[in-house]
Amino acid sequence: MIPKFIEHIGIAVENLEESIAYYENVLGLSCYAIEEVKDQKVKTAFFKVGQTKIELLEATSDDSPIAKYIAKKGPGVHHLAFAVDHLEEQLKTIENKGVDLIDKTPRKGAEGLDIAFLHPKSTNGVLTELCENKQQ
Amino acid sequence: MIPKFIEHIGIAVENLEESIAYYENVLGLSCYAIEEVKDQKVKTAFFKVGQTKIELLEATSDDSPIAKYIAKKGPGVHHLAFAVDHLEEQLKTIENKGVDLIDKTPRKGAEGLDIAFLHPKSTNGVLTELCENKQQ
Repeated sequence: MIPKFIEHIGIAVENLEESIAYYENVLGLSCYAIEEVKDQKVKTAFFKVGQTKIELLEATSDDSPIAKYIAKKGPGVHHLAFAVDHLEEQLKTIENKGVDLIDKTPRKGAEGLDIAFLHPKSTNGVLTELCENKQQ
Repeated sequence: MIPKFIEHIGIAVENLEESIAYYENVLGLSCYAIEEVKDQKVKTAFFKVGQTKIELLEATSDDSPIAKYIAKKGPGVHHLAFAVDHLEEQLKTIENKGVDLIDKTPRKGAEGLDIAFLHPKSTNGVLTELCENKQQ
């Protein structure tokens, strides 16, 4: 596998509205989508900078993974997502290398991408996502 | 300001050698430089993925900012750096918007870039760097 680019950077925030205002008013980016992902108990806002999306994540419930992350570490970068080809094969290859997978096979993520997460204990502390865009 | 792309992602790691092995052997990236930055008390390793560099940061001393970060939050993404033009003017503009700057004027960073950090209390918890490449 050679990742093609950083597909997105997931950032845990305490207040989505305030964070959107910062990314728009200070950094000059444009929020192009706001979406609630009910099964993950998050509300998300998307920005694009070069090849990479910034995905802000606000918990919608105290038992959301994002609420737990902020309680432990404070707001900040929650995960990195790499764009790859042939995701299903890549997962088998890296599992054979001893990497602990959260998703052993791809599942559907935002924007129709196929996604899978690697466990941070296998990735030096960075929750890591691999994404394939089969629509391209 | 509209950032052009994510210039790099700084990742605090506990062990540079082990982390380089993960990025090379699992993700398939190539480490193209290892550099010690004595005044920051860090040893760094660089990879490129698309437009963006990954900069791994290992503390070389217990009073390194990276050692303090890991003691507080564990290993993970330490900062995000955006590529911008006209950095000096941008800093004045965003300071006027109430953003707390760590560097009020640009200073020299790795690879000859002009850089400045914004304080995470003004950026929703993400230590944020702006970079200008005047050599381009």
